[in-house]
Amino acid sequence: MKIVKGFPADPEGNYQLNMINMMKHAIRNFSRQEIISRKMDGTLFRYTYRDSYERMQRLANALNSIGVKVGDRVGVLAWNHHQHYEIYYGLPGTGAVMVSLNLRLAPQDLAYVINHSGAKLIIVDEDLLNVAESIVSLCKLIKGYIIITDKDINEIDTNLKPIYGYEALLAKASPIFEWPNLDENSAYAACYTTGTTGKPKGVYYSHRNVYIQALMFAAQLPMSVNDVVFQLVPMFHVLGWSKPQAATYAGAKLIFSGKWNLDDLEELTEIMVQEKVTVSAAVPAVFMAMLEFIRKMENKPDLTGTRLICGGSEPPIALMRGFWDECGGEIIHSYGSTEAMAITTLNFFKPWLKTELSEENLWDLKKKQGTIVSGLDVKIIDEKANQLPHDGKSSGEILLRGPWITRSYYNAPEAKDSFTEDGYFKSGDAGSLDPEGYLKITDRIKDVIKSGGEWISSIDMENTLMSHPGVLEAAVVGIQHPKWDERPLALVVKRKGFESMSIDEIRDHLAKSFAKWQIPDEIIFVNSIPRTSVGKLNKKVIRMEYKDIYIKS
Amino acid sequence: MKIVKGFPADPEGNYQLNMINMMKHAIRNFSRQEIISRKMDGTLFRYTYRDSYERMQRLANALNSIGVKVGDRVGVLAWNHHQHYEIYYGLPGTGAVMVSLNLRLAPQDLAYVINHSGAKLIIVDEDLLNVAESIVSLCKLIKGYIIITDKDINEIDTNLKPIYGYEALLAKASPIFEWPNLDENSAYAACYTTGTTGKPKGVYYSHRNVYIQALMFAAQLPMSVNDVVFQLVPMFHVLGWSKPQAATYAGAKLIFSGKWNLDDLEELTEIMVQEKVTVSAAVPAVFMAMLEFIRKMENKPDLTGTRLICGGSEPPIALMRGFWDECGGEIIHSYGSTEAMAITTLNFFKPWLKTELSEENLWDLKKKQGTIVSGLDVKIIDEKANQLPHDGKSSGEILLRGPWITRSYYNAPEAKDSFTEDGYFKSGDAGSLDPEGYLKITDRIKDVIKSGGEWISSIDMENTLMSHPGVLEAAVVGIQHPKWDERPLALVVKRKGFESMSIDEIRDHLAKSFAKWQIPDEIIFVNSIPRTSVGKLNKKVIRMEYKDIYIKS
Repeated sequence: MKIVKGFPADPEGNYQLNMINMMKHAIRNFSRQEIISRKMDGTLFRYTYRDSYERMQRLANALNSIGVKVGDRVGVLAWNHHQHYEIYYGLPGTGAVMVSLNLRLAPQDLAYVINHSGAKLIIVDEDLLNVAESIVSLCKLIKGYIIITDKDINEIDTNLKPIYGYEALLAKASPIFEWPNLDENSAYAACYTTGTTGKPKGVYYSHRNVYIQALMFAAQLPMSVNDVVFQLVPMFHVLGWSKPQAATYAGAKLIFSGKWNLDDLEELTEIMVQEKVTVSAAVPAVFMAMLEFIRKMENKPDLTGTRLICGGSEPPIALMRGFWDECGGEIIHSYGSTEAMAITTLNFFKPWLKTELSEENLWDLKKKQGTIVSGLDVKIIDEKANQLPHDGKSSGEILLRGPWITRSYYNAPEAKDSFTEDGYFKSGDAGSLDPEGYLKITDRIKDVIKSGGEWISSIDMENTLMSHPGVLEAAVVGIQHPKWDERPLALVVKRKGFESMSIDEIRDHLAKSFAKWQIPDEIIFVNSIPRTSVGKLNKKVIRMEYKDIYIKS
Repeated sequence: MKIVKGFPADPEGNYQLNMINMMKHAIRNFSRQEIISRKMDGTLFRYTYRDSYERMQRLANALNSIGVKVGDRVGVLAWNHHQHYEIYYGLPGTGAVMVSLNLRLAPQDLAYVINHSGAKLIIVDEDLLNVAESIVSLCKLIKGYIIITDKDINEIDTNLKPIYGYEALLAKASPIFEWPNLDENSAYAACYTTGTTGKPKGVYYSHRNVYIQALMFAAQLPMSVNDVVFQLVPMFHVLGWSKPQAATYAGAKLIFSGKWNLDDLEELTEIMVQEKVTVSAAVPAVFMAMLEFIRKMENKPDLTGTRLICGGSEPPIALMRGFWDECGGEIIHSYGSTEAMAITTLNFFKPWLKTELSEENLWDLKKKQGTIVSGLDVKIIDEKANQLPHDGKSSGEILLRGPWITRSYYNAPEAKDSFTEDGYFKSGDAGSLDPEGYLKITDRIKDVIKSGGEWISSIDMENTLMSHPGVLEAAVVGIQHPKWDERPLALVVKRKGFESMSIDEIRDHLAKSFAKWQIPDEIIFVNSIPRTSVGKLNKKVIRMEYKDIYIKS
């Protein structure tokens, strides 16, 4: 898209929007703000922004001392903790690129990411040594490993080499580092998407991308020095959904969750209440488990004013109402992707809608993904790339463009189709925009089921299935059909206590919300549903497994 | 300052941070938000963001139709109203530059600004025709005038030519405009500083400068769609202190004050209460007059949660406490300049200071200008350019650098000294930073009084004089002295009812706060004190008038 140059404003050039400048300002204003980090043994480590900044400088010196140079890529394989936060600034601050490694990837995918990025150093939690060890033979370029551990490096039993101790390196490094004045277009970090098709694709975020998004998030949430931000989203997922950056900009108190899974949510909920958390983010399943725990608490916590960003998939109404009714916490529906740096919508009510809509309609509105945040351009297009109206009905592929949306994958010419010539990212998601600007995702473009020329939304049907008390999990996919092109297939996992539930009961439940022709010919009870490394339904695997079900029949 | 390039993030280039993109997003999300404009007759005109945007597009087409091209400069001489807001976007959106004209400048200075900028078109309020007419003979480059008026253009009696009617132009223009994709480094607007020395100097703000500052202001105040922003600061002063931009970003309701002076503050206060204003900004004198009116109101308004940004000079404690006690409104001390785009500090209490400091100490803290907002670099230097510590005591010149701070004056090589080689603007203000990051301005560098090798702050002394109930206005300047280098001189205007107040009474009042050697040798009662076109004490004129007072004596 042609850029028009107007009258020059200032021949002296621009101040660079790099993340070290952001950190320096946080230190000037908020050096006494607290940071809390949950350790492996569950105890809480506490220090301040000032302490953290000193260690970031030590880290930067340490990295330089072992040969890390401007432009180098360094892989990071770690849980959510204060050292990971130090790496978020201390590593890209030197001019190197932080390559976030998803610790749940299969070894061959993880190795692909490391090799594709050209990372020559890996920073890894002691707890994740087995993951690092699994890729050693596949990654010949790696020159060393920094292990995050409290132990002496000689006590570590591993076949990785050479190895350095994170704490030992910091201890002997200088606490003063002269940060380079980094060009804002330099890469800050890389995250690789793990789509259900093809190899992982690298999204390289510039310092400018991350800086502007942090500012937007701090403005639109908003976030301030009075906030307490609980980092639950894994920091290797799309930069932890931008909270470690926005919180730094705002000077908010930060709490890192450590290593955790759904079984730890009682403990994490207690931390949330004790530390008076005001901002957090997670996928619906996490908040669902939290809500279950809160329901059982004798003394209900007061989470009034707490904003819980919820994305990844659509949070059920029961979850949103549950938090509100039980403890006053607000679930804020959001939508994003790796390419769009996690935050592209936030669902807030406009003041006029609060007076115009009934309470019921407001709850319905919360099911939408929210408005595209200011700063981004959006388009919805049909299959012929025609722009569709924002009428709340017309559904098509969502295209996004803006200061933090990537315009290309790194070194992946085969994936050029994901971007338009005028700089839009083609999200692969289908959805509609209403006249007030609220986005409703209806499906992944490739998961939309086309039956006899009509579309069926797999997401709508999954949500309806999930609303049945006997359904624990559900997946709906389109399977090739000789007559109707595609027909839906539903997989259902029964909840404990509903072992005797019948297929007809499910069918009757669907019939309340769907037309007869939309209801799957086949509904199958299964013990579990395949999921990807980031926990999403793996529809590619399901489609493959059942590809002949409607051909045989 | 050398910029270090790291690993390239995205070869496809950047999305441009231009103000039309910001406006487009506001329209997508907040098109129904209200805008109110106080007309010349005092009635309130109401329309919406959507209506406004349609007129911005008409304006852009109209400007192109009369020959305005990308890069052209266009002067704007107008009060605060919805048309001025339309010009804020519709004019720079075309790629032209909005040259803000201070309607209180003397004709020769105004003509200098117009000629220096090369403006070839002037947009002027009918009410300000006399100002435009005063410079016609001095500005030979002007090719036309657009007059903002409800009248038919034939009814306008003026010697300006050619003239166009703003409303007539819009009426016949198309409501759709294809905005150019403007380079973010293109100039958005120019404001000329009117220092007390030399010719006005032009500060040209890029779209990027303005965009990033709006984002910062919306984040750090913060501002949202739930806010009601009252634009009292003249829109020709440093872009109205950034509120017309930050409010647009946030989608806040906007109220434009129309033409007003201190006598209109009762009416304006009533608008503030009726429309439930939550954000406004002004110099202390304006809020002082508002407070006087509120004190007299029978039913005190509830301004809880209202943030009143106060800058230009230090707001007295009595004003800040008065607003808080009378109606719960909060005065937020701020500091800026034309070169630094008005907002460089905001005075908020950090949560830990609220628990550590006594109420009295917190009020004292509010006298400071606040913390340098995140996004900016700051340095305090002594006369030899050595950096001073942030200890709350060391005072020196304040240097600022950041995404919205100018790095040069337009076409003014003689003023190069105001900027350092590493991109800092030398503010000319003396001050200190405390360990928590709060800035305290002690004086203008050139207004500091050096007596016998010691420094006396003229601002401190003026504030002390002003705290005496009998003092309406006060100015303190340093005058050359044969023995002490300089000695202070105080001019005092008595308040009504204090006609019999003596010089000794003033001297005794000062003695409570100042050492004997600091007290001015001469204190003179005067009827008025010279002020500049922007209402600041004109110390240059005072020093000139009294230059021999200590030589003679």
